[in-house]
Amino acid sequence: MAQFGIIGHKGRMGQALLKAVAEAGHEVSGGVDEGEQPGPLATRCEVLVDFSAPGALSANLAAARVAGTPIVIGTTGLTDEHHRMIDDSAAYLPILQTGNTSLGVTLLAHLVRDAASRLGPEWDIEIVEMHHRMKVDAPSGTALLLGEAAAAGRGVDLASSKESGRDGQTGARAEGAIGFASLRGGTVAGDHSVIFAGDEERITLTHNAENRMIFARGAVKAAEWLIGKEPGRYRMEQVLGL
Amino acid sequence: MAQFGIIGHKGRMGQALLKAVAEAGHEVSGGVDEGEQPGPLATRCEVLVDFSAPGALSANLAAARVAGTPIVIGTTGLTDEHHRMIDDSAAYLPILQTGNTSLGVTLLAHLVRDAASRLGPEWDIEIVEMHHRMKVDAPSGTALLLGEAAAAGRGVDLASSKESGRDGQTGARAEGAIGFASLRGGTVAGDHSVIFAGDEERITLTHNAENRMIFARGAVKAAEWLIGKEPGRYRMEQVLGL
Amino acid sequence: MAQFGIIGHKGRMGQALLKAVAEAGHEVSGGVDEGEQPGPLATRCEVLVDFSAPGALSANLAAARVAGTPIVIGTTGLTDEHHRMIDDSAAYLPILQTGNTSLGVTLLAHLVRDAASRLGPEWDIEIVEMHHRMKVDAPSGTALLLGEAAAAGRGVDLASSKESGRDGQTGARAEGAIGFASLRGGTVAGDHSVIFAGDEERITLTHNAENRMIFARGAVKAAEWLIGKEPGRYRMEQVLGL
Amino acid sequence: MAQFGIIGHKGRMGQALLKAVAEAGHEVSGGVDEGEQPGPLATRCEVLVDFSAPGALSANLAAARVAGTPIVIGTTGLTDEHHRMIDDSAAYLPILQTGNTSLGVTLLAHLVRDAASRLGPEWDIEIVEMHHRMKVDAPSGTALLLGEAAAAGRGVDLASSKESGRDGQTGARAEGAIGFASLRGGTVAGDHSVIFAGDEERITLTHNAENRMIFARGAVKAAEWLIGKEPGRYRMEQVLGL
Repeated sequence: MAQFGIIGHKGRMGQALLKAVAEAGHEVSGGVDEGEQPGPLATRCEVLVDFSAPGALSANLAAARVAGTPIVIGTTGLTDEHHRMIDDSAAYLPILQTGNTSLGVTLLAHLVRDAASRLGPEWDIEIVEMHHRMKVDAPSGTALLLGEAAAAGRGVDLASSKESGRDGQTGARAEGAIGFASLRGGTVAGDHSVIFAGDEERITLTHNAENRMIFARGAVKAAEWLIGKEPGRYRMEQVLGL
Repeated sequence: MAQFGIIGHKGRMGQALLKAVAEAGHEVSGGVDEGEQPGPLATRCEVLVDFSAPGALSANLAAARVAGTPIVIGTTGLTDEHHRMIDDSAAYLPILQTGNTSLGVTLLAHLVRDAASRLGPEWDIEIVEMHHRMKVDAPSGTALLLGEAAAAGRGVDLASSKESGRDGQTGARAEGAIGFASLRGGTVAGDHSVIFAGDEERITLTHNAENRMIFARGAVKAAEWLIGKEPGRYRMEQVLGL
Repeated sequence: MAQFGIIGHKGRMGQALLKAVAEAGHEVSGGVDEGEQPGPLATRCEVLVDFSAPGALSANLAAARVAGTPIVIGTTGLTDEHHRMIDDSAAYLPILQTGNTSLGVTLLAHLVRDAASRLGPEWDIEIVEMHHRMKVDAPSGTALLLGEAAAAGRGVDLASSKESGRDGQTGARAEGAIGFASLRGGTVAGDHSVIFAGDEERITLTHNAENRMIFARGAVKAAEWLIGKEPGRYRMEQVLGL
Repeated sequence: MAQFGIIGHKGRMGQALLKAVAEAGHEVSGGVDEGEQPGPLATRCEVLVDFSAPGALSANLAAARVAGTPIVIGTTGLTDEHHRMIDDSAAYLPILQTGNTSLGVTLLAHLVRDAASRLGPEWDIEIVEMHHRMKVDAPSGTALLLGEAAAAGRGVDLASSKESGRDGQTGARAEGAIGFASLRGGTVAGDHSVIFAGDEERITLTHNAENRMIFARGAVKAAEWLIGKEPGRYRMEQVLGL
């Protein structure tokens, strides 16, 4: 049994986390949300789980660092600057950051990397995702995570291959591009497909989440795994031994 | 048996049209392509079929008008200005313009209009399409046609409801929006889905084209139907009696 | 506010119904399950909702008839004999029987009927559904309901067109057949697709349920609508004014 | 440049093969079809490609054996007895038998095996396929090939895990079952999906063939690879170095 601190506990994912922590036999030391200082919570718990907002990341990392508390970061919409902050803090404490905490998506990313490494550049890669109407960023963190897996398999850099938000006179598809498209609507918990479109055939690798609990349960597993690790930056695949 | 003039006869659709015209027992009077004047062809044939480019529309309409030859327009990527040109010319000759000439898509648009008229605004509408890697515009003409059908069913204006090319910090989905997303890759002839995403349930209406011949055959049917009609602007639904 | 009696209240749907009845501001008079007599409950409530098992139908109808209580029947796996029982009882009390109580599926059936009536017999109709691993009958009641809609649109009889459970040397598809295929696995609440497969193009009409609550909420709406109606057998479409 | 002998050259796949052999710069020595002896052809060519019928397999293998000519077998609907015949003949000549000759499906089978080996038995496996209305056997050879890959990944025997043709009161899904469902209609060249359905999430791995040429081209690649090999029974994965 471990003591969990939930950052962003009033949000949809925060509520699911409270339930998943209890299901797994752990305890919640407390939660903080927008406008509250995470410092006291960080000293009181054994592991922090952060599903808040990019703007809160700096304060959350500082609190975790002062208290020496491991932290799982599931917040999406992170910029390069945010990733640098995480890298800096990882010299002092164990951090696991991931665009998606579900077992299924983590395996999917592994399959995507494998497929991308075996199919030549004549197979165009497209990633499409759908989420509920309240989601504020696009593409989803999970779509970007899958794009990173595809880029890694192909041995290219995602930043320079990414083609997102097509609209208007776009011209023909750039060779080697990794395309992204985002759908929003209803209460969809999260659907992702990675399409490899070749000459007259297609391979599509898809994940469908029925609800948010799979992410909450995966985050709890990641937190359990992270407690007691050496300082460093970890990935979800490591939790699953992939 | 009728005499067909093909505008854009060297393109992918033009080649399919040559085949479809022959299959249906008609004759091809000739074809023109980029840089060639459509005037002589227009006087020589009974009906023109135009799958060229928006930039050629003005010259094509002028030639049809001078010769008094009916014209089927399947070119995509048209602007409001192009639509005004078509309306103007329709006072003098029969014109059928459509974003998609297949029987299946025409029926799909009819179903989309019906569904949109019966489902309340709490059902979010999203349209996703996939086409081959060479396509230069997004969303596809067919996706826009389906969006028009959805907007008409809901009694709103597409221009003010359209949400296309989501990328970055988009904020939550606008209420009443009709979203568009475009995938490009491989040799896909054309897949379209209209998603109605409600609370905890979704209805999705999809069309898959296996190859370009369905569009060519539909364009030939539309041309047969258009010969002998009064001047005016016609729609594909009318060809099918919907 | 009305008093509801739930038959099969310990099952998955029964539990969802208890929640949906409360959400809608009604009260639950009580519930019965396997081995219990529905008689006392029927006299105590204003409407019965039955999601139990085909074997219990005869006793449930008898109880409703004695008490004169309207009844919504959502039980699946009914035979012709069960349908005759329902017809007999409908002379004495209002009964609404349906293979699916969701708004979305009811609209989908309406679209399927329309599409089937407009597409010629050269468009093959296939219905595929997926449900959780515990489901005991195939095809699902909803798949059969959609098949009935397709058959009605086409003006044929489902019983003589149905092609289900393909396995082995089946021979080519029978002309005019309506095919069914059933997938089972995981916790899927219910996915259904009706495919119209023509020459080189396909139209697919799909419904996805994210969870069981949509069926429970629809059943409550049907029950509200049924209270006070004349004796007779009613359909879900009537609740929605289709 | 090699000399090809086509068995079943009048069928759909046979016609595609004639085209693919020419495209790849090879020559067709000749073809045989129903009721014709394959013996003379076998002695005249360097490699045989057989897409005929199970009933012709025995004569085709005998002819290949007498002539010592390698043979690629793409015929579907083979029984255990047919597989024993192939094993027997493989002692004398190189044979490559496969349920699917496309690059994409061969990679998909590799991904399915990997996923099945990593996901526990609480993930139910279902395989669904769709083919054109003329196909006479179900499930497709490719679906069975994917089922074999899933069974191998999970370390079980397909024959004892297979659940096909669900219809009627089936009872709950058997633990560890690998389910199959077959759709037939239109002119679909071949769609296959392998679904891993877990608790509240699903992973789906899909292949879509736009037309038959991908199979013909793959068969030609397999034949090129097979010429000059030692006697033995080979698999499509070996052609691709998987």
